[in-house]
Formats: sequence, C-alpha cells, structure tokens
Amino acid sequence: MRFFEILLSKNSTKSTFDFCKMMRGILVEKFGGSEECKFQSNIPIPEPNDDQLQIRVYAAGVNPVDTYIRSGTHSRKPNLPYTPGGDSAGVVTKIGKNINNFNVGDRVFTCNSDSGTYAEYTVSKPMYTFKLDDSLSFEEGSALGIPYFTAYRALFLKGQAKPGETVLVHGASGGVGLACVQLAKSHGLRVIGTAGTDAGMSLVKSTGADYVFNHREEHYMDKIKALNPEGLELVIEMLANVNLANDIQILRWKKGRVMVVGNRGDIEINARFLMAKETSITGVTLFTSDQSDFNLMYSHLNALIKQKIVKPVMGKIYPIQEAHTAQHDVINNSGTTGRLTLKID
Amino acid sequence: MRFFEILLSKNSTKSTFDFCKMMRGILVEKFGGSEECKFQSNIPIPEPNDDQLQIRVYAAGVNPVDTYIRSGTHSRKPNLPYTPGGDSAGVVTKIGKNINNFNVGDRVFTCNSDSGTYAEYTVSKPMYTFKLDDSLSFEEGSALGIPYFTAYRALFLKGQAKPGETVLVHGASGGVGLACVQLAKSHGLRVIGTAGTDAGMSLVKSTGADYVFNHREEHYMDKIKALNPEGLELVIEMLANVNLANDIQILRWKKGRVMVVGNRGDIEINARFLMAKETSITGVTLFTSDQSDFNLMYSHLNALIKQKIVKPVMGKIYPIQEAHTAQHDVINNSGTTGRLTLKID
Repeated sequence: MRFFEILLSKNSTKSTFDFCKMMRGILVEKFGGSEECKFQSNIPIPEPNDDQLQIRVYAAGVNPVDTYIRSGTHSRKPNLPYTPGGDSAGVVTKIGKNINNFNVGDRVFTCNSDSGTYAEYTVSKPMYTFKLDDSLSFEEGSALGIPYFTAYRALFLKGQAKPGETVLVHGASGGVGLACVQLAKSHGLRVIGTAGTDAGMSLVKSTGADYVFNHREEHYMDKIKALNPEGLELVIEMLANVNLANDIQILRWKKGRVMVVGNRGDIEINARFLMAKETSITGVTLFTSDQSDFNLMYSHLNALIKQKIVKPVMGKIYPIQEAHTAQHDVINNSGTTGRLTLKID
Repeated sequence: MRFFEILLSKNSTKSTFDFCKMMRGILVEKFGGSEECKFQSNIPIPEPNDDQLQIRVYAAGVNPVDTYIRSGTHSRKPNLPYTPGGDSAGVVTKIGKNINNFNVGDRVFTCNSDSGTYAEYTVSKPMYTFKLDDSLSFEEGSALGIPYFTAYRALFLKGQAKPGETVLVHGASGGVGLACVQLAKSHGLRVIGTAGTDAGMSLVKSTGADYVFNHREEHYMDKIKALNPEGLELVIEMLANVNLANDIQILRWKKGRVMVVGNRGDIEINARFLMAKETSITGVTLFTSDQSDFNLMYSHLNALIKQKIVKPVMGKIYPIQEAHTAQHDVINNSGTTGRLTLKID
C-alpha cells in the first residue's frame, strides 16, 4: 500500500514526522466477507499529490459496490490492504498545487476516492469532488455521489428518459432506487417502483413514486402489465440476474429499453422479445462518465438540491467502527430502506 | 382466406368471371414442416383493392422468417390456407385507384405482400413495393427486400454504424449476412464475417469481408478477440441463442453494441459484461420500419444498385414447385451460401 511504502522509504524528502500522523478508519487486509472491514486507529493519513485534494471525512456512504470489491470478485481489485469507499462528505484540508477550483475549508462530497472514504481522511481527484450545498448535512452529502450520479446516468445520459414516459424502478428502496424515483418524478415521468417489504414500499411511495409493488409477490409483474397495456418505455434494473427475462417482456413497442444498474449473476433470456418489439438492454456504470458528464450531472443535481427537489432519503447511520455491519446490511437486508451511512466524528 | 370468401360472396358486384382466373402457386393448408408448402395450379388470382398493387411475380425470395411463419410458432400467424412469402420481383399488372406513384408495366420488387409471393400473382401495398433498377434481373430483385432492408436497418438505422468502425457479421453467408457485408464495406467499415463451411467462408470473403472465420471452429472467438484487442464496435447477430453470451464479451468499452437480427431460442447471459463496458443489446425487426424509414432505405439502396455497389449474391434457384425444398434448405443447410430463390415462369 502506497502510504506504508512512503513511510518505509529511505529516500523520502518529507520529514518522517508528517507521515506519523495517524487516523482512524477501516482497513481490509484480505478479500472476504463483511467481517474483513476492520476498524483501526493507526492508519497513516493520506497526503494529496499535486492533482489531489485531501478531505477530512465526516460521513461515508455505503454502497453495494463496496461489498463486491471487498469480496475480491469485482473487476476493480485494489492492492491489499485497502480502505473501502468512494462516497463521502467533509471539508477540504489540503490542495494539490495543480488544483485551482477548490479552497481549504470548502464543504464537499465525493463519489470516488484514491485512498478510500471509510476513514477520517481521504484523497480524491477534483473530477470526483463536488461542492456541497449548505442546505445538506455531511450525512446527506455522503448519500449523493454514487446513488444520484448513477441514477442520473441511467435515466438521462444512457436511458434518455423523457417527461411523460413511464419508468419502472425495479428495486427502488435502496440508494440508487430512491434517487431514481426522485429524479424521474422531478423530470415529469410516471414512476412505478418496487420494494420487498412494507417499509420499503411506503418509503418508495413517500419519495414520490406513483405506484409501488412488492417484488416478492408472485404476480406483481402481471399487475404492472395491467397498469401499462402498451408496455413500459424504461426499466431501471437493480438485479438483472433475477428480473431481466421478465423486464424485456413488458417493454413498449419500439420505445422500450432496460438500463441494467445492478446484477449478481447469470440469467436465461429469449432475445425474440427484443426483436419482436425492437427494444434494447443497456449496461450502465457510473465510472464510464467523463469530466463533461460529471459537469453536466453535478450542475443539474446541484440546481435540484438548491430547489429542495433532491433530498437524499437517509436510512440507518452507523459509527465508523460498525462498517462491517453496514456492509452486511446493505447487501443482505433486501428490505433496506434509505441510504446507509458511516459517521466519522 | 379472403379470395375464397370473395369468390363465394353473393354480394360481389364484380363478375364471377374475373374471379375464376386461376394461378399456380404454393398454399399452406396447415402449419407444420416444409412439406406443408404444397404446389397448386388452381389458386384464385388476388385482385388489388384501392390501396394495393397487383404484381405478376417472376421470382420470389425464400427467407428464414417464411419458415418460422409456416411452422405456426411465429408471432405472425396468417389465416389458413395461405401463400407464403414477402420478397418478390415482377411487373405491375393492376393498380388500386388510390395509388399514383406506380404504372402498369413497372418492374418492381416487394419486401412484404398481402397475399403471399410464392405464386404467379401477388397484391402488395405501395409502402412495401419499390421500382427495380433495370440493371438487376427479377431473381436479383427478389433478393433485395428483406435481406437488404433488414441489413440496412440493423447496421445504420438501429446500429448507427460509422465508417472506420469494425463490425462482426455473425453468420454472414446467408441473405441478410451477405447484404450486411456489402453495405458495411461500402460504408467504410472494417468487416469480419463468419460462416460454417469453406464454401460459405469464401463467399463471404469474395463479397468483401476483410476477415472470415469459421464459427464451427472451437476457438474462433479468441481469434476475433486477438484481431481486435480493444473490442468490437458492432456485432450483427443472426443466431442470438447460440452467440449472444459470447458477443457481449468482445465489445468495445462504451462503444460496443449488438444488433440481434436472428434468434431461435433461449440463452444464458451475464449482464455484468454489459455493465462493465456500458454496452448494449438491441433487437431489430424490419417491420417496425415506417414509411419514412423505407423511403430512406430504398433511396440509399437504389443509389448503391445504380453504382453497381449493391449486387445480390445469388444462391440456388428453385422452380416454384420445389418451394418445400427451398424452405427446408434455407433453415437446415447452415452452410447456405447466397440467396435462395423461387422462379415462377
């Protein structure tokens, strides 16, 4: 790991003293279950290079992708040991000399990090760091990055969602799902959401969905079909390995498209459903976004925040020491409601 | 069947004499195998209504979709008995009174028919009827409609193919495949084709493909990968139930897309391949095209015909009496090379 290497380096021109500043945070020393998220209080504080910001993190968001990376099976496989997390909110503490659009003291949020966000300090690139509106707390700020940018990318940049269309948010009670509901509704779409529990369903409804169905009920897809005899224009799919074969059967002729945002395995489909109605399936990943995508997404998102239209729905807040429990809950409690957050006082 | 109904109608204002004109052709009296394509010489000649043209057919194209319809399992299920076929070329013999852009005597080709094209006469709508350039024979003309319009729609209208991109035509030795090779090559794409026999491969190569692989060889996809380390921009897929899971693994980051043109069953895929590179799968069907799509496709196709760039690759020509053999061959002989055609003298 880079910080340890620097610490051990004989050639470092900086004083050893600087690197002996330690912080509290989570280290994963080997890939495995959520129990590998170990709290430590002697992690070296990461120093920014010329192109990075250092941020004092007060809240870190817990995303499903964090657990995939921790398991060691994801395409992103960090060098061990590493600190998890990409979403955070806090205050800028140091600025690399090539950066001129941030100041020390700025309240910011991130959606990606070079050193991990489950810790007191993180270093991040300006492309993934955004000023946090005063109206939002750090906990709310740490709920913006991955959920809202992913939802925005899926709905608008890839899904080309248009006012008046109907979107099914298939798995709407998690972070990305609730962000989809808010953003789609604010854009004038008709929104159908699904959740797996009564609590999840009522949260999806109160977040603005026009209709909510329980995806654990046997015939819920028939009910969605009955509500949309001409089919759906857009499906935002959080669990393609379970739902994709059905999704492609309820799409609208020539207009239907599925955006796959989440997936955990294989599924058998029949491509004739795509052919018969000339519909499509598209994969979506936030980190294919470039600088101009992030500029666009942040500009719109921030305007909606200032208008109080975007407001993250907060779920359970855990102390940083309980990161392993939060990672377990985000992936295993399919009745998850709202955004799971780590607090780092 | 409509013609029989008219024949039997007591209220018909036309003389019975008109309807007693009979023609030779194929009738399918029940759904089933290719043997259900029965030659008959006493089929009533179809009369055009005010919005139809009547055409004396000299050649009819045999398409895989004709066999799916005949089996009774396709979404298009005609009333029995019916005459198969949508592709044809011939001469206009009668014109409905609402039609003003055709004349009796025009050489034309069709890609759809209201009465079927495996017969001496057919009636068709102007939307699906196109003037046939003098440089092409009727046999060649009957090879244009479904193959070239489908190829054009898959490559350009849906696939957004761009000069300089690489396209894999997965199953390139059939009618649509060869049309894809010609159209893609003429548009400045780099073209990789596959076929299942040496004869098919050499036909694909001589039609203009830059590279040809045998899709019956075990590791041919690895060879295609090696040739395209950054992945492919476009795949035109003729047999999604066999190839789709592999197709989505050789697509280019952010640019890759698969157009599904043919499919005969289920396939297991992993949507993470779509997510990881933000790629897509789209179904394509010719008959989602509207009048403006057909205008665009025909205008371009006809220009390419006049420049001798588009020239159908002809395969075996069968007498109309042998329609059952042609339908058997088009679907079972996977070493099919070139376009199968029925000749109707």
